[in-house]
Amino acid sequence: MTEAGSLKNIPGGVTAAQGFLASGVPAGLKKNGALDVALIFSELPAAAAGVYTTNRVKAAPLELTRSRVEQGKARAVIVNAGNANACTGPGGMSDAQAMARSAAEALDIAEEQVLVASTGVIGVPLPVAKIAAAVPQAVAELSRENHSAAAQAIMTTDLMAKEYAVELPIKNKRVTIGGMAKGSGMIHPNMATMLCFITTDANISDAVLQQALKRAVDRSFNMITVDGDTSTNDMVVVLANGKAGNAEIVQDTEDYRRFYGALKEVCTALAKMIARDGEGATRLVEVQVTGGPSREDAGRAAKAVAGSNLFKAAVFGKDANWGRILCALGYSGAAFDPAATDIFIGEVQVAKDGGALAFDEERAVEMLSRDPVQICVDLKSGAHSATAWGCDLTYDYVRINGSYRT
Amino acid sequence: MTEAGSLKNIPGGVTAAQGFLASGVPAGLKKNGALDVALIFSELPAAAAGVYTTNRVKAAPLELTRSRVEQGKARAVIVNAGNANACTGPGGMSDAQAMARSAAEALDIAEEQVLVASTGVIGVPLPVAKIAAAVPQAVAELSRENHSAAAQAIMTTDLMAKEYAVELPIKNKRVTIGGMAKGSGMIHPNMATMLCFITTDANISDAVLQQALKRAVDRSFNMITVDGDTSTNDMVVVLANGKAGNAEIVQDTEDYRRFYGALKEVCTALAKMIARDGEGATRLVEVQVTGGPSREDAGRAAKAVAGSNLFKAAVFGKDANWGRILCALGYSGAAFDPAATDIFIGEVQVAKDGGALAFDEERAVEMLSRDPVQICVDLKSGAHSATAWGCDLTYDYVRINGSYRT
Repeated sequence: MTEAGSLKNIPGGVTAAQGFLASGVPAGLKKNGALDVALIFSELPAAAAGVYTTNRVKAAPLELTRSRVEQGKARAVIVNAGNANACTGPGGMSDAQAMARSAAEALDIAEEQVLVASTGVIGVPLPVAKIAAAVPQAVAELSRENHSAAAQAIMTTDLMAKEYAVELPIKNKRVTIGGMAKGSGMIHPNMATMLCFITTDANISDAVLQQALKRAVDRSFNMITVDGDTSTNDMVVVLANGKAGNAEIVQDTEDYRRFYGALKEVCTALAKMIARDGEGATRLVEVQVTGGPSREDAGRAAKAVAGSNLFKAAVFGKDANWGRILCALGYSGAAFDPAATDIFIGEVQVAKDGGALAFDEERAVEMLSRDPVQICVDLKSGAHSATAWGCDLTYDYVRINGSYRT
Repeated sequence: MTEAGSLKNIPGGVTAAQGFLASGVPAGLKKNGALDVALIFSELPAAAAGVYTTNRVKAAPLELTRSRVEQGKARAVIVNAGNANACTGPGGMSDAQAMARSAAEALDIAEEQVLVASTGVIGVPLPVAKIAAAVPQAVAELSRENHSAAAQAIMTTDLMAKEYAVELPIKNKRVTIGGMAKGSGMIHPNMATMLCFITTDANISDAVLQQALKRAVDRSFNMITVDGDTSTNDMVVVLANGKAGNAEIVQDTEDYRRFYGALKEVCTALAKMIARDGEGATRLVEVQVTGGPSREDAGRAAKAVAGSNLFKAAVFGKDANWGRILCALGYSGAAFDPAATDIFIGEVQVAKDGGALAFDEERAVEMLSRDPVQICVDLKSGAHSATAWGCDLTYDYVRINGSYRT
């Protein structure tokens, strides 16, 4: 899978940017001593921004993090996997606070500067004592090298750790943006969609950072779909500590546009890794819609196709059943003329003006065997486009989700 | 599976009502000589009403039927399985017209009195000559006995034919309502959801029939969900020929309410059969939501739970993962207070006031093994309730839909 961005992927993930350290340690929440607590620390106070789930049911750590991000500054993030601390009643909030406090004390920083996130099973009280007991080790192991341990510690059913970083010159300074993400089920458009932590050494205010993040998330994490379910815990958080020493990035400038572009690139790369790692998925699916009457219509259309169970099962089976693509467009809510729509599976055009086209089935099967599978839809109803990412629906999705707790 | 209606299920399906005949014959659209063309005929002109898919992409036969039902009268319905005549370009409409014409000529009735429906693969031209060639046999075999052959002829991936009929006294006359339905994939709330043909010998105007049908469909077919995809061809059509000889049923009377109740009972029974027969499903799932602030909120909440892939996979795996139920409620769009919500899996309460409750896992597994699986959610936010039906998500769903065309 190639990342289509214009900037070069550099190593380092969440510690690629200057002044950030990370670690991942085992606290006993996962089985067999696996890493399950991640810590991110900024040597300087950092501007903070966040985007959160739209689910009405919100986990306690998310509520706590949101209230702290709204203050605009943070220095650390502590994350656990194995327990979501969601639907845990009033005790959930005090557990989230205690988890943050344990990190604050060990780092000797103010409690309010620690953000907190959890992922895992819902409805079971957080074993906060186990996490607190692991915090000293997490602090001791903080380093620029341990970014991958942190990325591993936040995984649940993920098959691979997800990290990405880029650098770009802003005037004569080198600015770096890097991050890590976690997610493989419960991924759906129009919400923050999973856990993602991004760090940058850019000098930027929390308000401008929030604006850039919102827009980048709309075009990346909000355009992936795995199973249509949206979670109680999902968030994307960015910390910017200014250590690059660039002149402050302000709105409506060329510097802002370039910073936004790089942030979107990191978000898109991590979002595609999540779609590719959808539970049970064997192939990434990229749906490009062009010719939409508006960006919203193109986005709705692309997401409906990427999210259709019937289409996703057809991708798994390599069945060039393009009627399911047109059908999904039809219920997407997008404004378009079915009788003007062209559909391509990879390089093979399978429908023209909404109707069947004779095509080479073998070549279509070959296109459906590629990774990523590329679907292009031209609505021929305007000049707007959008891209959504998903995955195929497989036997393993059912197996994984039929026995998550057991 | 028990049908909760108050009226007794009687045999006869789509010919249970007086003055209706039906047949099902093989036209060669399905493999191995299976029945694939159904014909329904009313001895008298009948009032007609219909509800159709909300998909922007609508199949030609659906457009033709809708325009004819709007005239208020019909005498026959011809249906084929094996080819949906959807996304077939301008030729689709002339094929649908030709299919209806072949039935009209053989029945010696006006072409405009014949309704037409198709189901099957999308994007392939309808083999209308094959259908026309089978029409004489379909007319010759019309009888009150052949209702089951008709119900079989409209099946695609359905595992069982779906028929239901009830009778009720209206004043001193016996009125019968019966029907047949087809559907097992692509079933989703807020659309007509599949093919369903209902006949009644009641004396009722097409306008009043339309009103009753709309309301009954909202509470039955629009409350089932199999995979979230909505189709291009789905419709529910009712014909009422007046042969029972009752005084005309008019709005806002006790007779109307009783007729509506019986129509809803037929719709609900057929809708549950479709949910139970969801592609690959092993168990029906019934989600009852009480305590909603409005019927709409309760309906949204019930449908979100019944439609959640994660919850459906958990039902298949008999995993009492109630967090997924609360999570689905959270993204349903329904107004409610998560911290006031109680959840029951069968007789086992698994959550109280939005939080975990110690419960007997073995008994919960037993409840998840029943058919239907009963989920009750009390939002404790009002006095409104709704029920939705779905099924579990299984390996077989993926198998069936990974190779539908091949």
